[in-house]
Amino acid sequence: MKVTLEELRAFLDEQFPQGAAFGSLQKLGDGWAEMKLAVDEEHLRPGGTVSGPAMMGLADVTVYAALLTRIGLVPLAVTTNLNISFLRKPVAHRPIWARAKMLKVGRTLGVGEVFVYSEGAEEPVAHSTMTYSIPPER
Amino acid sequence: MKVTLEELRAFLDEQFPQGAAFGSLQKLGDGWAEMKLAVDEEHLRPGGTVSGPAMMGLADVTVYAALLTRIGLVPLAVTTNLNISFLRKPVAHRPIWARAKMLKVGRTLGVGEVFVYSEGAEEPVAHSTMTYSIPPER
Amino acid sequence: MKVTLEELRAFLDEQFPQGAAFGSLQKLGDGWAEMKLAVDEEHLRPGGTVSGPAMMGLADVTVYAALLTRIGLVPLAVTTNLNISFLRKPVAHRPIWARAKMLKVGRTLGVGEVFVYSEGAEEPVAHSTMTYSIPPER
Amino acid sequence: MKVTLEELRAFLDEQFPQGAAFGSLQKLGDGWAEMKLAVDEEHLRPGGTVSGPAMMGLADVTVYAALLTRIGLVPLAVTTNLNISFLRKPVAHRPIWARAKMLKVGRTLGVGEVFVYSEGAEEPVAHSTMTYSIPPER
Repeated sequence: MKVTLEELRAFLDEQFPQGAAFGSLQKLGDGWAEMKLAVDEEHLRPGGTVSGPAMMGLADVTVYAALLTRIGLVPLAVTTNLNISFLRKPVAHRPIWARAKMLKVGRTLGVGEVFVYSEGAEEPVAHSTMTYSIPPER
Repeated sequence: MKVTLEELRAFLDEQFPQGAAFGSLQKLGDGWAEMKLAVDEEHLRPGGTVSGPAMMGLADVTVYAALLTRIGLVPLAVTTNLNISFLRKPVAHRPIWARAKMLKVGRTLGVGEVFVYSEGAEEPVAHSTMTYSIPPER
Repeated sequence: MKVTLEELRAFLDEQFPQGAAFGSLQKLGDGWAEMKLAVDEEHLRPGGTVSGPAMMGLADVTVYAALLTRIGLVPLAVTTNLNISFLRKPVAHRPIWARAKMLKVGRTLGVGEVFVYSEGAEEPVAHSTMTYSIPPER
Repeated sequence: MKVTLEELRAFLDEQFPQGAAFGSLQKLGDGWAEMKLAVDEEHLRPGGTVSGPAMMGLADVTVYAALLTRIGLVPLAVTTNLNISFLRKPVAHRPIWARAKMLKVGRTLGVGEVFVYSEGAEEPVAHSTMTYSIPPER
C-alpha cells in the first residue's frame, strides 16, 4: 500500500476543502477504502432521505481513495466515467457508508466499484462503477 | 406540455430546499429543460474547477425537469440509474448549464440524456444518461 | 429459489434458440447464476481474443438467469440498461465464464452485477451492471 | 477526416472477419459514422425482435468507425466502457441502423454516443455511450 490512513486523510482534506461535504475516510487497505458521510441538512431531500448527489459524491471520493492506495498521492487522477444504480431508499437521518474496491489499476486507467449503505443496514442503497484516468507522468 | 416554467420552478424549490445548490430552471419545452448552476465555493475543486458531484446534481435535476414536462408534477419519480462521462475540464469560476432531453417516457420508466456546458463554451464538459422510475399510481 | 437448473436450462434454450452462441448455464442459486461460453470462431477478434459483444451477450443472459431464480420463468423481463467495463484482454481461445448476482429484485425492476472471467484466470476480464424491467402482471 | 469510406470498410472487414454479423458501414464524416445491420436468424429473439447483443455489437463498431475518422486506422483502440439503454422494442425482421458521433477525442480516450434505429422508424430503439482507449504510440 502506497499511503497510510493519515497521509491520505491529509491529502483529501487538501483536495476537497469542503471536507465533510464529501465524507471522511474511515479505513484503508491495498486497493480498497471505506468512507462515511455524516448526513446533514444540505444532503437531504424532502422526507429526510439522502440526496443522489450526496451519494454520488461519497462514492466518487471513496473510489479515488481506493485508487490512491495503489498509485500514491497523485493529485491529477480524474473521474472519466461514473455509473450508479440507486437500489433502495436510504434510511432517513442516518449516516451513509461507502466501501470501494479497485477492479483494475492499469497504466492509464483505474476501474473501481463501490457499494453505499445506510449505517446499520445490510442491503446496499446504491452501487457504482467508476473509471479514473491516471496522469502519465508520475 | 404538462407544466409551465413557473409551476415547475415552484415545485423544484419545494423538492430541493437547498435550491441554488442544484441549479435554477431557465427554459422549458415539451420533453426538454435547461438549467443553470451559479458555481460558488461549495462546488469547486482546487484550481477553481467545478466538482463532479456539482455537475451530477445539476444533470440529475435537469433530466427530472424534462421528465416532469411530460408526466406533470409527480413528486415520487426517482433516479434509478445515472451514467456520466466527464469530457473536459469546466472553465474555472464560470456558471455551468445543463440541457436535457427525454429519449423515452414510458409507463414506468423515463430515459433522458443531458449535456453540461461551461457558460460561453461550445464543447460539452459532461454527458449523462439517466433512467427515472415513474410511480404507477398517478 | 423459484426454478431448478434443469427448468431454467430448458427455458433459456427456448428463449435463445441460437443457444451456444450466448453460453450455457452451469450453476444456480438463490439470486445468482454461473454460465460458460465455449468460445469459437464467431466470438473472436483478430489475435484470438474474445469479442466485446460475445462478453456482453454472456453477461446479459447470466444476469437474466440470476433474476429468474427470484421471479420464476418470466419470459417478458427485458434489459433496460447495461453498463460494462472491459478490464483485461481475455485469454485467447479459452472459454469465458460469467458469475452474476442480483443486487436488488423489486416489484418492477431488478438490478444485478456480473463478473466475466477467462477460464482458469483469477482476475476478471469484464464487469457489468444491468437493470431488468419486470412485467407487472405475473 | 483521416480515412475514406473505402479504406475504413476494408479495415473493418479485416478487424471483424465475421463481417456482416456486426453490420456494414454506410456513411462517414468527420467524427461520425452510420452502419446498418441486415438482421438475420442469429440476431433474433423469439417473436422476431433483434437481440440486445446484436444491437450492442452494431453500436460498438459504429462508434469505433466514428473514432477512426479522427485518429486514422488504429487497430489497437479498445472499448473500455459501454453504457446502453434499451428504449423500445425493435421492429421485427427489419434491419437496424446505428448513427454514432464522437463527443470527445483526446490523447488517450475517445468518448462517443450512438443511437440505434429500426429501419424506417423515427424513435430510437437504443442509445449508447462508449469510451475507447487510444493506444499511446501512434
